[in-house]
Amino acid sequence: MTTRGNNLDPWYDSYAERTAGLSVSEVRALFAVASRPEVVSLAGGMPYVSALPRELVTGAVERVMRDSGPAALQYGGGQGTPEIREHILEIMALEGIRGSVDDIVVTTGSQQALDLVAKLFLDPGDVVLAEAPSYVGAIGIFRAYQADVQHVAMDDDGIIPAALDERIRSLRSEGKRMKLLYLVPNFQNPAGVTLTWQRRLEVLELAKANGILVIEDNPYGLLHFDQPAPHAMRSVEEDGVVYLGSFSKTFAPGFRVGWALAPHAIREKLVLAAESAILSHSSFSQMVISEYLRAADWKGQIDTFRGVYRERRDAMLTALDDYLPDLTWTTPNGGFYVWLTLPEHLDSKSMLPRAVKELVAYTPGTAFFADGGGRNNIRLSFCYPKPEFIREGIRRLSNVIDGELELLSAFAQTGPLAVDRSRRRVVAPPSSIGG
Amino acid sequence: MTTRGNNLDPWYDSYAERTAGLSVSEVRALFAVASRPEVVSLAGGMPYVSALPRELVTGAVERVMRDSGPAALQYGGGQGTPEIREHILEIMALEGIRGSVDDIVVTTGSQQALDLVAKLFLDPGDVVLAEAPSYVGAIGIFRAYQADVQHVAMDDDGIIPAALDERIRSLRSEGKRMKLLYLVPNFQNPAGVTLTWQRRLEVLELAKANGILVIEDNPYGLLHFDQPAPHAMRSVEEDGVVYLGSFSKTFAPGFRVGWALAPHAIREKLVLAAESAILSHSSFSQMVISEYLRAADWKGQIDTFRGVYRERRDAMLTALDDYLPDLTWTTPNGGFYVWLTLPEHLDSKSMLPRAVKELVAYTPGTAFFADGGGRNNIRLSFCYPKPEFIREGIRRLSNVIDGELELLSAFAQTGPLAVDRSRRRVVAPPSSIGG
Repeated sequence: MTTRGNNLDPWYDSYAERTAGLSVSEVRALFAVASRPEVVSLAGGMPYVSALPRELVTGAVERVMRDSGPAALQYGGGQGTPEIREHILEIMALEGIRGSVDDIVVTTGSQQALDLVAKLFLDPGDVVLAEAPSYVGAIGIFRAYQADVQHVAMDDDGIIPAALDERIRSLRSEGKRMKLLYLVPNFQNPAGVTLTWQRRLEVLELAKANGILVIEDNPYGLLHFDQPAPHAMRSVEEDGVVYLGSFSKTFAPGFRVGWALAPHAIREKLVLAAESAILSHSSFSQMVISEYLRAADWKGQIDTFRGVYRERRDAMLTALDDYLPDLTWTTPNGGFYVWLTLPEHLDSKSMLPRAVKELVAYTPGTAFFADGGGRNNIRLSFCYPKPEFIREGIRRLSNVIDGELELLSAFAQTGPLAVDRSRRRVVAPPSSIGG
Repeated sequence: MTTRGNNLDPWYDSYAERTAGLSVSEVRALFAVASRPEVVSLAGGMPYVSALPRELVTGAVERVMRDSGPAALQYGGGQGTPEIREHILEIMALEGIRGSVDDIVVTTGSQQALDLVAKLFLDPGDVVLAEAPSYVGAIGIFRAYQADVQHVAMDDDGIIPAALDERIRSLRSEGKRMKLLYLVPNFQNPAGVTLTWQRRLEVLELAKANGILVIEDNPYGLLHFDQPAPHAMRSVEEDGVVYLGSFSKTFAPGFRVGWALAPHAIREKLVLAAESAILSHSSFSQMVISEYLRAADWKGQIDTFRGVYRERRDAMLTALDDYLPDLTWTTPNGGFYVWLTLPEHLDSKSMLPRAVKELVAYTPGTAFFADGGGRNNIRLSFCYPKPEFIREGIRRLSNVIDGELELLSAFAQTGPLAVDRSRRRVVAPPSSIGG
């Protein structure tokens, strides 16, 4: 639903062209639904912040206010405090990244970093290449800058280099201007899959050869369950990658602190764009996080988060096996999400109201496509509800799906659409998740 | 200095058109200078946060974390918490504004609110009308959206309605599309003057008649010294005004909490734009400020700030009388700034390095014009240094100005430029500050 305006709005004729790209996110309406306590929400991407001991936060705040109160209450520089940027280097080193504090820009969550990169690079009509499916918030940003989002097929090993190559050739032959390749290589949102190391190298090669800047968005990288993810793409390519990181999943989103590590020339512009947009990020938030990182066992805390999410991932996979054995889904090795494929004729978006009636919520697959794809997909989040609720949520979802299939089957007997009820038994693992 | 890029930057050809509008703020470079302890900085606009008792902040944090820790650490809604929006209504009522919590959007400082309004309304080439001089951060935002900033003359009573009328007619005859009128009606940044009530009504009338949206930016309104400022323009015009407010000056900038109160249709789009840009503002910051407003004597705290800044304003005006009796300046009844007019042939920007050498810093007037104006003006901030430092800063400034005049006079005796040294004695109060 676009909201360019209407004739009840006296400012209808005054809006900028780009407001045509502003749309109500499908995830947004779910916030209201998900907040009702009787609903098991497998929809949102809220971290389980209760696993962070409160005294670690209050302790950090007390020490910051005692030792540096006036600085914490004051405006700061547009790039972020030197202290937190040092800590960020230390964190990125865990994924093989070496960089300079001078090339880091602290932002209001990594969402703002992405918004600023889009602002710097995207003219109307420019192409952004993205995984199919891709992060809903990124699609929203690209649309707001009137970009043309082109999805590229992915499978269980992430985006498919051959498909990327083909798409680039095809777009080039159409005379399109390709600016950015947006990727979530680790435990992807929404698909839950991870780009293999070999493919990372191939994708970097393709991007470089075609003058396309890679945006490596990595909010979940440290939240691996079984084995660590491959090193970051930024670890082997400095000039062609803007790397985005965040404290939202490894600490808490309530402070809204993320960052970009960018090639030097781009970093200079990012700081200017950040200053123009917000003057400076919250000194208080940055200093509290710095103090937490200095004083607390933050690596141990990340281990705690890993344990919490691993248990929930296991609960979800077990419940899917038990309640929806005929469907297919991805098996994430980290992060927050499982990507479920419904029987072909089901529409996850139109099914949602019935699901909410059955007290379970999810995000329809269409939210993660700029082109109407994902109709029979669902993103299931295992990050927030406790394991027993996840199981109950999947049980309710299986009832909903059964009900939809029965309805479809009843219609099929009276209408032109022939649906084989037995389809549900024969769904094979797809060779490609989308495309 | 624009930073579109250069040929050392491999991404030079990839930047969006709008990056041509990104420029290094003249205020920005001053942050580094102003931070040296031996320099008296009359440059920055940093509030004197040490006047806020730290225990009010730590107490609020402790109660928030004790009573609502997980909510404070979590993502929030894109519009801001209902609690802080209720408090914001209460604060705006002090300036005559009645509104609905539903029409408030909480933002990363009011700077972000302005950025989002600009994003919603400005296509390249659209005209933004602004006072002469105007807030440097607003000019930066308008430029980043490739707008055409047109300054309108102001005097000691604020923007001049007749000059506004004339400018609108002239721009209309040129076929220009005028979208926004940006004003800081109270204790203006940088001029320190206040728009009279009668003129507020006239300006609203002109804006309405011409379909121009008024952006009323009011960070300083509650910080009056002698008598309160007139009621907000928004108090008498709901559909034609977006009002911007901030906690940065009445509480602390370190939390980066500001807001917009907008006509309903615009508000809907502002929330979408805010969500796209940052997902949500910091729950933690909002909840800490809400708790502070609930538990503390915040009106008494604003009185404390008023007392601090009044004393500093007085110190600055007295020092100007004592050390620079021949120059002219504005007399602010609130806020942070005095606008000083130098002898005609002095250039405040080229004089700055000498000033820094003499250990005093200020902001050159050109920072506050999009068109090169303000060459012989200076913005003097009295908000941050203690009164004795303000006096010392003005004393140093008078030495710098004397030195420049002597230099100019020496050149005049040997070169083509005839400068009457006695000019300095005959500068009359200008009928108009600029324009």
